[in-house]
Amino acid sequence: MDWEKVFATRAGRMKASEIRELLKLLAQPDIISFAGGIPDPKLFPDQAFREAYADIFATSAGEALQYSVSEGYPPLREWIAAHMATIGIPCTADNILITSGSQQALDYLGKLLLSPGDTALVGWPTYLGALGAFNAYEPTYDRLDPETNRSASDYAETAAAAGGRVKFAYMSVDFANPTGRTMDRAARERVLDLADELDMAVIEDAAYQALRYNGEAIPPILALEIARKGNIEDCRTLYCGSFSKSLAPGLRVGWVCGSKRAIGQMVLLKQAGDLHSSTLNQMAIDRVARSIFDDHVAMLRGVYAERRDHMLSALKRYMPEGVSWTHPEGGMFVWLTVPPNLDGAELLAKSLKTQRVAFVPGRAFFADGTGGNTLRLSFSLADKETIEEGIRRLGLLLAG
Amino acid sequence: MDWEKVFATRAGRMKASEIRELLKLLAQPDIISFAGGIPDPKLFPDQAFREAYADIFATSAGEALQYSVSEGYPPLREWIAAHMATIGIPCTADNILITSGSQQALDYLGKLLLSPGDTALVGWPTYLGALGAFNAYEPTYDRLDPETNRSASDYAETAAAAGGRVKFAYMSVDFANPTGRTMDRAARERVLDLADELDMAVIEDAAYQALRYNGEAIPPILALEIARKGNIEDCRTLYCGSFSKSLAPGLRVGWVCGSKRAIGQMVLLKQAGDLHSSTLNQMAIDRVARSIFDDHVAMLRGVYAERRDHMLSALKRYMPEGVSWTHPEGGMFVWLTVPPNLDGAELLAKSLKTQRVAFVPGRAFFADGTGGNTLRLSFSLADKETIEEGIRRLGLLLAG
Repeated sequence: MDWEKVFATRAGRMKASEIRELLKLLAQPDIISFAGGIPDPKLFPDQAFREAYADIFATSAGEALQYSVSEGYPPLREWIAAHMATIGIPCTADNILITSGSQQALDYLGKLLLSPGDTALVGWPTYLGALGAFNAYEPTYDRLDPETNRSASDYAETAAAAGGRVKFAYMSVDFANPTGRTMDRAARERVLDLADELDMAVIEDAAYQALRYNGEAIPPILALEIARKGNIEDCRTLYCGSFSKSLAPGLRVGWVCGSKRAIGQMVLLKQAGDLHSSTLNQMAIDRVARSIFDDHVAMLRGVYAERRDHMLSALKRYMPEGVSWTHPEGGMFVWLTVPPNLDGAELLAKSLKTQRVAFVPGRAFFADGTGGNTLRLSFSLADKETIEEGIRRLGLLLAG
Repeated sequence: MDWEKVFATRAGRMKASEIRELLKLLAQPDIISFAGGIPDPKLFPDQAFREAYADIFATSAGEALQYSVSEGYPPLREWIAAHMATIGIPCTADNILITSGSQQALDYLGKLLLSPGDTALVGWPTYLGALGAFNAYEPTYDRLDPETNRSASDYAETAAAAGGRVKFAYMSVDFANPTGRTMDRAARERVLDLADELDMAVIEDAAYQALRYNGEAIPPILALEIARKGNIEDCRTLYCGSFSKSLAPGLRVGWVCGSKRAIGQMVLLKQAGDLHSSTLNQMAIDRVARSIFDDHVAMLRGVYAERRDHMLSALKRYMPEGVSWTHPEGGMFVWLTVPPNLDGAELLAKSLKTQRVAFVPGRAFFADGTGGNTLRLSFSLADKETIEEGIRRLGLLLAG
């Protein structure tokens, strides 16, 4: 059977990542890896989860193992709504949809908003998983750059020429994957101006929001929009949150927060997509969040801040001339720019043979295929000695 | 903000179900409900799950709470591959993708195969959730009826006139939701003939496969195709399985089994869609399936068979002239056809005021909006006395 004839047209946009294949080769014990952007499993609150599951089975097994509503487990939606209020976003449980991780939120947002040929505005670079999610809905990408003064009509005309209209701007706002950069308040406000002018939605990816190590918190875009418009129901921003970085990713629990009209339409997608997220896991997250969220996140901040400091200090010592990097105030990533004659993918292949240090070449994060001379490093998994040795090796690789 | 301007065109196909709203009104203590097609929570193997989660936290908490591969937890894929062999489908773990329930398998199959305007062949009636999943990809539906001799070229021409091609035939094969009917072997073979002629995929929904109460098992369509072609890799059938009816739905674990080419492409959709299903829940299902699957399913068969028998016996006693119904050999559903002057939705609204018995009006299961004089009853939740009283009330409703 020739499956190509039967696949939908979107299949052409959904290719296996060469980088992912290369990184599989690098998953060997003598490799020092800064590639994965994943939490340190030694920091998971496993005791709290163990107790939560035991308690659920002791008190509510029938409910936990049964089907449940597509919107999500009501007490967890209540907790999230209260949590949103603490970061400047007053809302109710009706403004919250529980998703299976924030990756699913991005998939459903693409599904909600994009018809083939519509335009999505994204950063150059942006989160690879967002491009993967949106690609399924066959958009055109245009570059969102709040630093420039490109006019709304210019964006609109470019989108019309591509056969659709601008449907949304997507951005990771705090300590972004992959750059570690944070959008300042002025840039957030400019995105809201642009959104009103273009009559588009705004997708605010706040996956790392809780992991700030220094500097002052900047209000979420949705908070700034509520301040402008007075009410979440009049807002066009859809905020994507996740427990993957603050508690644990293996349960697949995240959420979207926005106006009831948009959330209500997303509930229909959830119902048609997988009925609901795991009842049991939502109940466990609810219990664990209520008992330890703030304390646990405070602990994570302390540990990850030290690792970031080690990495920034090692970079200063070992990077050769011509290499620059970001100085993230939180999250898990530092972003390197190497001289333009170097290529990240070639460097990674070379590293497999020589220095045995792994990172993610940056090109995959660029919707236009540029960014060859960039690399993403994660400091989330490594202790001080490993960071020291790995960055030393990276210095040799880049110098060689 | 006018969200309608920003939504994708698919939003027009994704409406809230009026029936679902009506059924919410019926969720009151004095109502006898045959509406939900859900397992009896009193029959969940909660002790086995309690032990599985305790064991996982004692031995593998870090792994269980962490990200994992999009294909699914390898030992569970191995167990499923071995299970598939016992029902006539020899395969390996590489032929299995774990999904978040078989509803997600249906969503991803629509996403894999359908571009707007393509045709999906479905039964009149068919599983409502499949129509919901596929609607997001804007197909045209044509009627699959293996009983008639409609030619492949007639299907192909109808699809071309609708602006696409026939991409797949979808069917629930054993004790289908909503009818309780089972496709006989000859009908399964005819679907395979048609699939080869139309060069289309076949989606075999086997959600209820394990719940057979009497009669002889009929080989899955995928087993029949392997017998024809010698190898799963040459097959066009994609088999969707689920633990929701055999173990528990609240964990959201199901699977798709098919050729590596098709499964590999679906892995990309899974990666872009939600990264992976819950690591922890997959590990728990793996442990529970290995320890109790066969015994547990045997117990379920005994209990549900009795409930089916009670319902069929009560129908015989209480249904007025002009009402007919199916005699399922398994599953959870009996399908009623009432005189053509009656309408299921009107009957349900009337029942809310008078007899207080709930069921699902059949029209929602028909892609063409016919079927007004049909009703779906589920016997999965009710004990003998409740079935007796509920069917007695239904008889009064239909007689009145």
